[in-house]
Amino acid sequence: YTTSPDQSLVKTMEELLKRTVAPLPTYETRDKSPPIPESSSVEFMHFYRSLDKEQKLEFLDRLSRDFGVDHKSVSELAAKVVETQLRDLPTVLQVEDRLRYSLTPRYRHLFGHISRVEGGVKFLVDLRADLIEIISSKASESPLLRDLNGTLKGLLSEWFSVGLLHLERVTWLSPCELLQKISQYEAVHPVRNWTDIKRRVGPYRRCFAFTHAAMPGEPLIVLHVALTEDISSNIQTILREFATLDTEEDVNKINSAIFYSLSSTQAGLQAVDLGTYLVKRVVRKLQGEFPHISQFSSLSPIPGFCAWLQGQLSSQLKEGRGAGLLTEQEWREVAEVTGSEVGAADSLRKLLGSGDWVRSDGLARALEPALMRLCAWYLYGEKRRGYALNPVANFHLQNGATMWRLNWMADTSPRGIGSSCGIMVNYRYFLQETAGNSASYLQNKTIAASDQVLGLVSQYQKNSKL
Amino acid sequence: YTTSPDQSLVKTMEELLKRTVAPLPTYETRDKSPPIPESSSVEFMHFYRSLDKEQKLEFLDRLSRDFGVDHKSVSELAAKVVETQLRDLPTVLQVEDRLRYSLTPRYRHLFGHISRVEGGVKFLVDLRADLIEIISSKASESPLLRDLNGTLKGLLSEWFSVGLLHLERVTWLSPCELLQKISQYEAVHPVRNWTDIKRRVGPYRRCFAFTHAAMPGEPLIVLHVALTEDISSNIQTILREFATLDTEEDVNKINSAIFYSLSSTQAGLQAVDLGTYLVKRVVRKLQGEFPHISQFSSLSPIPGFCAWLQGQLSSQLKEGRGAGLLTEQEWREVAEVTGSEVGAADSLRKLLGSGDWVRSDGLARALEPALMRLCAWYLYGEKRRGYALNPVANFHLQNGATMWRLNWMADTSPRGIGSSCGIMVNYRYFLQETAGNSASYLQNKTIAASDQVLGLVSQYQKNSKL
Amino acid sequence: YTTSPDQSLVKTMEELLKRTVAPLPTYETRDKSPPIPESSSVEFMHFYRSLDKEQKLEFLDRLSRDFGVDHKSVSELAAKVVETQLRDLPTVLQVEDRLRYSLTPRYRHLFGHISRVEGGVKFLVDLRADLIEIISSKASESPLLRDLNGTLKGLLSEWFSVGLLHLERVTWLSPCELLQKISQYEAVHPVRNWTDIKRRVGPYRRCFAFTHAAMPGEPLIVLHVALTEDISSNIQTILREFATLDTEEDVNKINSAIFYSLSSTQAGLQAVDLGTYLVKRVVRKLQGEFPHISQFSSLSPIPGFCAWLQGQLSSQLKEGRGAGLLTEQEWREVAEVTGSEVGAADSLRKLLGSGDWVRSDGLARALEPALMRLCAWYLYGEKRRGYALNPVANFHLQNGATMWRLNWMADTSPRGIGSSCGIMVNYRYFLQETAGNSASYLQNKTIAASDQVLGLVSQYQKNSKL
Amino acid sequence: YTTSPDQSLVKTMEELLKRTVAPLPTYETRDKSPPIPESSSVEFMHFYRSLDKEQKLEFLDRLSRDFGVDHKSVSELAAKVVETQLRDLPTVLQVEDRLRYSLTPRYRHLFGHISRVEGGVKFLVDLRADLIEIISSKASESPLLRDLNGTLKGLLSEWFSVGLLHLERVTWLSPCELLQKISQYEAVHPVRNWTDIKRRVGPYRRCFAFTHAAMPGEPLIVLHVALTEDISSNIQTILREFATLDTEEDVNKINSAIFYSLSSTQAGLQAVDLGTYLVKRVVRKLQGEFPHISQFSSLSPIPGFCAWLQGQLSSQLKEGRGAGLLTEQEWREVAEVTGSEVGAADSLRKLLGSGDWVRSDGLARALEPALMRLCAWYLYGEKRRGYALNPVANFHLQNGATMWRLNWMADTSPRGIGSSCGIMVNYRYFLQETAGNSASYLQNKTIAASDQVLGLVSQYQKNSKL
Repeated sequence: YTTSPDQSLVKTMEELLKRTVAPLPTYETRDKSPPIPESSSVEFMHFYRSLDKEQKLEFLDRLSRDFGVDHKSVSELAAKVVETQLRDLPTVLQVEDRLRYSLTPRYRHLFGHISRVEGGVKFLVDLRADLIEIISSKASESPLLRDLNGTLKGLLSEWFSVGLLHLERVTWLSPCELLQKISQYEAVHPVRNWTDIKRRVGPYRRCFAFTHAAMPGEPLIVLHVALTEDISSNIQTILREFATLDTEEDVNKINSAIFYSLSSTQAGLQAVDLGTYLVKRVVRKLQGEFPHISQFSSLSPIPGFCAWLQGQLSSQLKEGRGAGLLTEQEWREVAEVTGSEVGAADSLRKLLGSGDWVRSDGLARALEPALMRLCAWYLYGEKRRGYALNPVANFHLQNGATMWRLNWMADTSPRGIGSSCGIMVNYRYFLQETAGNSASYLQNKTIAASDQVLGLVSQYQKNSKL
Repeated sequence: YTTSPDQSLVKTMEELLKRTVAPLPTYETRDKSPPIPESSSVEFMHFYRSLDKEQKLEFLDRLSRDFGVDHKSVSELAAKVVETQLRDLPTVLQVEDRLRYSLTPRYRHLFGHISRVEGGVKFLVDLRADLIEIISSKASESPLLRDLNGTLKGLLSEWFSVGLLHLERVTWLSPCELLQKISQYEAVHPVRNWTDIKRRVGPYRRCFAFTHAAMPGEPLIVLHVALTEDISSNIQTILREFATLDTEEDVNKINSAIFYSLSSTQAGLQAVDLGTYLVKRVVRKLQGEFPHISQFSSLSPIPGFCAWLQGQLSSQLKEGRGAGLLTEQEWREVAEVTGSEVGAADSLRKLLGSGDWVRSDGLARALEPALMRLCAWYLYGEKRRGYALNPVANFHLQNGATMWRLNWMADTSPRGIGSSCGIMVNYRYFLQETAGNSASYLQNKTIAASDQVLGLVSQYQKNSKL
Repeated sequence: YTTSPDQSLVKTMEELLKRTVAPLPTYETRDKSPPIPESSSVEFMHFYRSLDKEQKLEFLDRLSRDFGVDHKSVSELAAKVVETQLRDLPTVLQVEDRLRYSLTPRYRHLFGHISRVEGGVKFLVDLRADLIEIISSKASESPLLRDLNGTLKGLLSEWFSVGLLHLERVTWLSPCELLQKISQYEAVHPVRNWTDIKRRVGPYRRCFAFTHAAMPGEPLIVLHVALTEDISSNIQTILREFATLDTEEDVNKINSAIFYSLSSTQAGLQAVDLGTYLVKRVVRKLQGEFPHISQFSSLSPIPGFCAWLQGQLSSQLKEGRGAGLLTEQEWREVAEVTGSEVGAADSLRKLLGSGDWVRSDGLARALEPALMRLCAWYLYGEKRRGYALNPVANFHLQNGATMWRLNWMADTSPRGIGSSCGIMVNYRYFLQETAGNSASYLQNKTIAASDQVLGLVSQYQKNSKL
Repeated sequence: YTTSPDQSLVKTMEELLKRTVAPLPTYETRDKSPPIPESSSVEFMHFYRSLDKEQKLEFLDRLSRDFGVDHKSVSELAAKVVETQLRDLPTVLQVEDRLRYSLTPRYRHLFGHISRVEGGVKFLVDLRADLIEIISSKASESPLLRDLNGTLKGLLSEWFSVGLLHLERVTWLSPCELLQKISQYEAVHPVRNWTDIKRRVGPYRRCFAFTHAAMPGEPLIVLHVALTEDISSNIQTILREFATLDTEEDVNKINSAIFYSLSSTQAGLQAVDLGTYLVKRVVRKLQGEFPHISQFSSLSPIPGFCAWLQGQLSSQLKEGRGAGLLTEQEWREVAEVTGSEVGAADSLRKLLGSGDWVRSDGLARALEPALMRLCAWYLYGEKRRGYALNPVANFHLQNGATMWRLNWMADTSPRGIGSSCGIMVNYRYFLQETAGNSASYLQNKTIAASDQVLGLVSQYQKNSKL
């Protein structure tokens, strides 16, 4: 941002902060300080909400700068810790505790008070969402704002720890408010109308959400499950199956639980791990209801695959070595179908961009082996700091799932074609192995994958001479 | 404790702790460590519950000693903080954050994991109750255990912060489980049967409790309120009024809300402030329901008054100057009624001990002015670290209430006679003044009191030449 | 219907009826007959549901014919009653009771058994809906079917008597199932989407429904209420007011309760009076919540007015005396605006048919006095068996409401223009007068009306020389 | 009763009845009569409740006499039916319908109106309870009161038909109000305290009740079930088993469902069949929850057995032929143990009266075969109008149960010894046979019994030479 807020507003901010962020009691009186009046917190919340984007940045900047840690006193106490390190244990412990107290930023106490006010927790979640946007959009690169974010994340992690979450099964008898919000929040496969959402909570379907006492009526994260005979390889079958609305579930037809959509709803809870726990709890719940279910798997989108592929095509085009991605034979087939021998790579790029390739059976057939191979590599081989680049893959692998099966023509919606060439992937949960897989992945960055996936990956490697 | 646990148990403890208390990830990998399996936490909980009192102490001792803070690394990082204090801000912040991380005891992470398991929060509340008992009974004076207690208190304060508590109005339609627990927990005026508890939730009565998502069905703290015309001066009227069970409330007869019983149920939540917040929330709730209620007051017991008075009598007897407590005229009247001129002080002590004095109208009349005066002093003048010695007084004064009226013959149950000579006190909440009163009391140790109380206190001072 | 069902089906029907409609126990053993197995009822229900429309008629015809009253035994017992009329009281009573028993059709017992089966009551409601359709479409004119209908109506009236109904306030937190059904059933002002229905249950709105234990999740009749400052004169204001969704209700702005939609959902409960009771209960409920509300009124559609008017125009055209409906002056104005001097009546008819008149300000202004006058007469003066011809008017007048105000341009939706020239009417409930009004209307057919309405009526009479 | 109510009260009654019991509309206007104001019904209810027992009788007498059927018009319409019996069907049907209408007592309409008022249905249930007491205590023998009772029973049967009842499983989380009422109403095995009732709804136990929309919070009939391995032969095991409170149910240990207590709570619902339906619904519910349960049985008391036996002993003593009840050998053993050779019969009578025999092992052993034999006969052989004299037996036999096993020392409480010499009986429900058994019993008075029971019965017959 460029223009600075006008001076009168800055003045107002300063005064408000002075008034509403209570001074820290001394270490000695920390348990005997008068309660902070709720009105302070309410005033703070009200004021913050009245600010526009740019003003919020200014305000948070001030908060993080002027109401954080007193570095001087930290440094003094640190010196004292060094001094007393050989003294008796009670002394050591006491000095350490003082140091710990001095390392707590003053705004952390403010947040504690706000959390006690009605709507306060939701306010802090939203404030953190603003902060995350500021940081990720690079509107500011202040390390103090990063610290503020870290402190908030720590607090929210406490408050949204699993013991305090309520697992709710959502049905057609759930409050309309809840179902409407779930419809709104559904990011993976959008809900279009009453019938759509009714089907999501009808027979052969389950919908679970975590809710939290401090944010009543607000689903924090939502998991949609299909109960099927086999592990699903196509999302439209799940979303548009019309037969199921009035039927009664036949338990004997239920062998698999397919997680086909997982949506977080609160930007401000980023990196507060809810998804992993939700999946675990739902698995346990389903095992309770259907002891004979033996197959647990996701049917997941692959956001970013097409974009990645386009990038690959572009850079290879530039470097004049388009050959690596498709085999010669494949290039020939593409050229044949598109009729443009020379610029096959270029016309492929355009076809992928428009999604038009899917309308030509010939082209689709020609591209299938290549796209499957490339997609397997994208999921398995592309990394960020050693972990899977694709965020959905990373999520399930952290949970201990196995990258199990890539499915061709699994999502033929425009969205599916546009973002992942219609391919979807099953991350399968072999319950005996998830703990081990999870540890291997997190510690050694090893990805558990099936023969199908590994086969496709090795084809890719062979073809691209990696 | 004297005998040490046998060596095989110690061995088992060591192994279990090593197995279940996960090693700390390094600062760098702290967000990328594999999830701790729930089974670890469950094993820890199960093992701890199987221990007897003495074994628990041994176990907690080990936990606090071997899985706390690494003092060496704290000291090194503290030195680094001192070193870098003049460096650029990002460096300072980073080193501080590392220091903060190193100051977090390893068992704090364990507690976090336990809180995520079903029943885990309740387990930690109970574990802290054990710890408090160990410390207050002086079974151990380890400063490490005190630190463990401090850490737990901090965590529980987060989890039981008010935003996460649910205020529940308890009625005769509430689950039996809840009402039975409330009956059991009622510490101030015991509940004897179904009719007793039914009256507590019937017309002209309100009963509120805080519950918490992580401890379903468990009332954490319970407040009983009577809705009356005037500020009550007698507890039996409230508890035994038989007329009220089937009547409909007449709003016009309700001018006052009397808090006549407040019971905490969880020893492990000591010093986690729930009572103050409950009183505040209930006041707000009642104002919503009865906008015209103008008088809010407690009718509170005075535990400890008789014991204190007996102590005074004893020491004065020893020092041969019993005269100070009663006026000469009063001593004469006592002597007259009891017929024992010489040992009036001694026989008074016995009468107070047995409670028999209450059965003699003459004696009761004779003692009334003295006991009221002494009681006022006990509440107003006796201090601990500058704050009111009497814990109930201290609680209400912290909340900002005024010590408003002492009531003679307000609790004539054996318990009431035995612990406070039948006197009870109203702490009155003048809503406009509570914030100011609270701050004055906490910061300056000033007690807000009515003319009646101050008058009695000054009589006491005059008589005892203080 | 023309073709008769094939003989094998008739045979099946006969056998099924013989099997499932239990023979009547004798009067003596009527309390000692074995319980009818549920399977009989279930078989009956299942079979009936499998039939098509024509087959249902055949089946009900048989049921009413072969399983009704045994006229011979009725006649014999009637003779006995005549004989014994001078005998002692116990004898008279006993013979009367036998006669009463014999007058109970055999199928009434069947219906009793069916009502005990899960879903049985709903089955009977639906069966009666079929019956009503048969009778009103004149598919059959069998007096036995009318008797069957009468018996069913009697039973349903017992089961749906008000003491057994549950008044439910529908909110945005009600089950989605309920809200979706209410959306579907809304007949008066159709609900288009989530926002529409959310507004119906949002601030300044109330939505109430009767539900019944035997038909869980099924709203039987739904009343929509708007809470307003003044008595509403326009329906679009109520339905499309966008400001209200997030606001909090300001009690001081609520002086009136406007019933703007009442929808019955069960055709089979025709003539079972639910609407009257719902209105009464809602009035009482609202008085409880808002003691200061002083104005209760409907804002009602006038279905049939345009059709009636067209009929009037046609017949007058035929009889060549179109003059009676409009004044000469009015005809002139119409002619002027439409530019068709000769066939003003004819072009008016066309304009009313198409609704195009509303788009011409001049025409609308010219027609207003005439249409208001005619509409007042239609509501007040047109009768069926002495009661108001318009069913909505008849409903509110039965309830004791006053025909209070006709509102010009009150419903400008195509539907509103098409069915009532955009006019709507308030039936106002003066609570002190409803009992009296109701009795006057039902017994003497007197309609309570305001000066505005009576003024319009007398204008009409003057103009048409009635 | 002897004294008649004073004249002023009689006058008041007459006026009130005239005012509150609406006159019957004519047949023609029966659907067009103004609604009866609720205030009439409320006034009637209020007045009736203010009366004492004797006044109630007077009042009901008047109601039944002056507001019943108009015998004259019945007789006239009956004559008309006879006249028109050969006329066309529509005429016949119409005259019959008029007759039917005239046979409806005027007070039936009153009851209909009362049922619509809040609390009205409960009022009528209580009124019928009064009526039943009057009739069974023979305070009046008016046939008109019997008719009134019959009308009320018919109405209540409609309103409490099974489709309108709600089956509720009662647990420790149910409202306290409900559990307290269930404790109060438990007639078979009294509930003594919180622990008792907690056990009744704890693990290995189920408690079900029917409730009704018109009487919220009121359990109408309550069934207690124990889930056991084998069919229980002892009630104390069920009631006092302390092990079960905190354990989790092990499904594998559950093979049998034992109905050990069934209590109706509303005297006014006498002969309205709720018990049979409750048992059926509970069986179905349990089959749903535990598909593998194969044994359903009651463990029932035998009220009246001791009284019957005493009667037998007395009359045999009078007739000097005491021998028939016990065998000679048995008499000898009794004489031996009691030491009173001459008056063995007399001393046996006394012992049975006091219950002291149970304290002597010898006597108990000696009496077992005789008491079992006699009890079997009492249950199986003693009849009233051809059906089992014992009401509990009659209930279960009507439901189609088999008289399966007599259990010695099955209820050793004073109550059990005193009323049935400690014997209890299992009525077993073989689900495939209940329908057939029920029909056989109700139509042919045949009792289904096991070999054990039949064996005991034939011993009795042999011994007493029947």
